[in-house]
Amino acid sequence: MSVLINFSIFPMDKGDTGLSRHVARAIEIVEASGLPHELGPMGTSIEGEWEDVMAVINACYHELEKDSDRLFMTLTADAKKGRKDGLTNKVRSVQEKIR
Amino acid sequence: MSVLINFSIFPMDKGDTGLSRHVARAIEIVEASGLPHELGPMGTSIEGEWEDVMAVINACYHELEKDSDRLFMTLTADAKKGRKDGLTNKVRSVQEKIR
Amino acid sequence: MSVLINFSIFPMDKGDTGLSRHVARAIEIVEASGLPHELGPMGTSIEGEWEDVMAVINACYHELEKDSDRLFMTLTADAKKGRKDGLTNKVRSVQEKIR
Amino acid sequence: MSVLINFSIFPMDKGDTGLSRHVARAIEIVEASGLPHELGPMGTSIEGEWEDVMAVINACYHELEKDSDRLFMTLTADAKKGRKDGLTNKVRSVQEKIR
Repeated sequence: MSVLINFSIFPMDKGDTGLSRHVARAIEIVEASGLPHELGPMGTSIEGEWEDVMAVINACYHELEKDSDRLFMTLTADAKKGRKDGLTNKVRSVQEKIR
Repeated sequence: MSVLINFSIFPMDKGDTGLSRHVARAIEIVEASGLPHELGPMGTSIEGEWEDVMAVINACYHELEKDSDRLFMTLTADAKKGRKDGLTNKVRSVQEKIR
Repeated sequence: MSVLINFSIFPMDKGDTGLSRHVARAIEIVEASGLPHELGPMGTSIEGEWEDVMAVINACYHELEKDSDRLFMTLTADAKKGRKDGLTNKVRSVQEKIR
Repeated sequence: MSVLINFSIFPMDKGDTGLSRHVARAIEIVEASGLPHELGPMGTSIEGEWEDVMAVINACYHELEKDSDRLFMTLTADAKKGRKDGLTNKVRSVQEKIR
């Protein structure tokens, strides 16, 4: 299965300023994973096999829990058998149909 | 950390009727986990340590991927150090403040 | 259409303690709407026609923005033609299929 | 407030193939709105005032309900006072902090 997820994770106990510093630590983990990914304004999309994608989520959680007493996470997943390059092709498929 | 999640998972390749039969297979896994949980109309909430909660999510995914070519999942998580019985107490804490 | 939503809204600029006081103000609006609803640990579910449900979301947003410089909201919606009492029946339909 | 949302909407009663055709109808509405936006693999992000952003969501819902008996929607929102060009700046702010 090609698993496409979009997720965001942030501390809730640091106020609302300077959050990007914490988010950046999660994104470093995403980048180090080598999985295809894309940063967006409301979350980061990753594509891979379920275990690989969830291993990244796990690592991000454990990185941020080190110095936070409260974390919030949102995640959506779309898993499809036989899909190739969903990160690119899902968007392209929609764009081709826009009149 | 007390990790509270709310998640839903459903096949996208079966049309929109008879989905409850597939969802029930995920809920059986949630119940077998022994973790505190609560079924809701838009998702199931579970409370536990991160690893335990994510193990349930993993098992649900693998159960439903057996006979589905496309799955959709939504998940939100609220992890808080030192929280006890968040499943009950988060709701109670809000209800006590309603005028 | 019976529109079932689950939503949560909370300020991000107040730290992570005392949030229930703010959430309670949103729930008061939900209750005043007269729409069928259910409080859960990770969000509140409401059922109604699209316009009615979204009017509640609107009112909750405007109530909390009064004294917050940053708000976060999550929402999932499941709209189905001809469904009756989805708030109760969606859960029951799953429970009947659990072995 | 600069309201940044990420949302996805899709019919559940059409199977899982050919969904991009339906999603494209929603994106046409997003584009016609003139609001800053960005297509992603798991949703579309839009930035604007709350009323303007929610008017787009409304229009997308009503377009897709015309020929669907079941719709699913996910939405996350991050509203922040005084933010400018959040669609671009939120991502840039994270990228600048990645080592």
